[in-house]
Amino acid sequence: MSLVNLSITAIRELIRAGEMTGQTAGLANGYLQANLVILPEKYALDFARYCQRNPKPCPLVGISDSGNPKFHSLGHDLDLKTDVPSYNVYADGKLIDSPTQIDGLWQADFVGFALGCSHTFEEALVNQQFDIWHLLHNKTVPMFKTSIQTVPSQMFSGEMVVTMRAIPHDRLHEAVAISKQFPLAHGAPVHIGNPHEIGITDLNTPDWGDPAPIPEGSTPVFWACGVTPQIAIQNAQLPIAITHKPGSMLITDIHDRAEIPVLNQDFSLSIT
Amino acid sequence: MSLVNLSITAIRELIRAGEMTGQTAGLANGYLQANLVILPEKYALDFARYCQRNPKPCPLVGISDSGNPKFHSLGHDLDLKTDVPSYNVYADGKLIDSPTQIDGLWQADFVGFALGCSHTFEEALVNQQFDIWHLLHNKTVPMFKTSIQTVPSQMFSGEMVVTMRAIPHDRLHEAVAISKQFPLAHGAPVHIGNPHEIGITDLNTPDWGDPAPIPEGSTPVFWACGVTPQIAIQNAQLPIAITHKPGSMLITDIHDRAEIPVLNQDFSLSIT
Repeated sequence: MSLVNLSITAIRELIRAGEMTGQTAGLANGYLQANLVILPEKYALDFARYCQRNPKPCPLVGISDSGNPKFHSLGHDLDLKTDVPSYNVYADGKLIDSPTQIDGLWQADFVGFALGCSHTFEEALVNQQFDIWHLLHNKTVPMFKTSIQTVPSQMFSGEMVVTMRAIPHDRLHEAVAISKQFPLAHGAPVHIGNPHEIGITDLNTPDWGDPAPIPEGSTPVFWACGVTPQIAIQNAQLPIAITHKPGSMLITDIHDRAEIPVLNQDFSLSIT
Repeated sequence: MSLVNLSITAIRELIRAGEMTGQTAGLANGYLQANLVILPEKYALDFARYCQRNPKPCPLVGISDSGNPKFHSLGHDLDLKTDVPSYNVYADGKLIDSPTQIDGLWQADFVGFALGCSHTFEEALVNQQFDIWHLLHNKTVPMFKTSIQTVPSQMFSGEMVVTMRAIPHDRLHEAVAISKQFPLAHGAPVHIGNPHEIGITDLNTPDWGDPAPIPEGSTPVFWACGVTPQIAIQNAQLPIAITHKPGSMLITDIHDRAEIPVLNQDFSLSIT
């Protein structure tokens, strides 16, 4: 069965039932996908500040109500306990488990943060005939920990994680201009060219995802990545924090071209 | 003395000394100005959620550290106690004072929220030869309470406030496209045309600011306004909350064309 043509409702049912536990790239086309961070309310204001100060890796698209697993601003019936294919569970800053649902772990003080992801601008690049290697080869985008420091907020700090895509030399300006249109999907790249300048020693050994080649005539281009807060959470050594598993995103009911990521808030204009 | 040509440092010194207590439109050209809300930490997470769910009236450009009057992410030496020309002080939801500094009111649990303001897109409109009446006549933009409900977050809720600018019929698309480029400055309009449709009964009697005419051949266009949270604060009946006085904004050290509103976070790229 190919998942690619399934409706968002069908995909969510499979995820909720634990029958789809993998990558979400290319699924439920046209809907905003998001990185997810869940943590106790006690740390939520500091984490909101961390996201606000680091909008390129952590573009805030939603903050759920404390204790309520339903994410009302992003979905009609979107449940943080079950609706991500696979989760990462961190205890005292260490990854201890990668379950497919977190029903038994949910706490009455949990707050969910949804952060924009790169799928939105990737789709826009593909629509302009950019060849994105990992998409063409059904792999996960290569992700690297860099030497770029994020702006701290109390216990949250750490290096920025980036994704890499090879872009033809003569189309760099175009790729920058396209991605810059999507500030909630990491916006313009943070670096172009030499990976060593941002602390990446070997493009063939990404920290997450699969290595991707740099074809002759192309340049490696680096965008801020929503896996960045997973480093900050490890550094913060929170007693408990839960995220999506990299690549396995929260699929929302928001259209990926919506001006704002809020359900039922449509200010589209008719100009006659 | 004309303030218009003064440097940002000189303007800030005058404001800090209580010698400039009025409107900030047109001052410190090239720097981001912001609406301000200060409230106790206890309410800060709910207010952050309110802003995130209402990004058109409340585009978040900064959240200060709890208790620290220095707004580090927006300025080198920006002090929330003194650096706004005039403040509004609300107690139990009622406006009780409009002082020029809040040194004596500052609390150890205060958190400041800076929200983008319309000056950024107004400047872009002026650069494209739009005649903005209130700017040409040295008045304050007309602001109206509407019937558009914001998305609530706990105690924060209420009607959206909008600003109005008259735009020539044949340039409406252009005005929308220009302002849409500035999501941190309220983005595209929320309504074009009939003020009655959004609960405005009389364009000649704005709730704040000065009335502006609609010239023959022009259409009233309404943008979300950063005064909206002042309604939400009144509805929330917080024991204490402090805002800027409408029109009298917080002038930051951030360049108004910066991709992200965070000091020293410059990811501008050189493509060779």
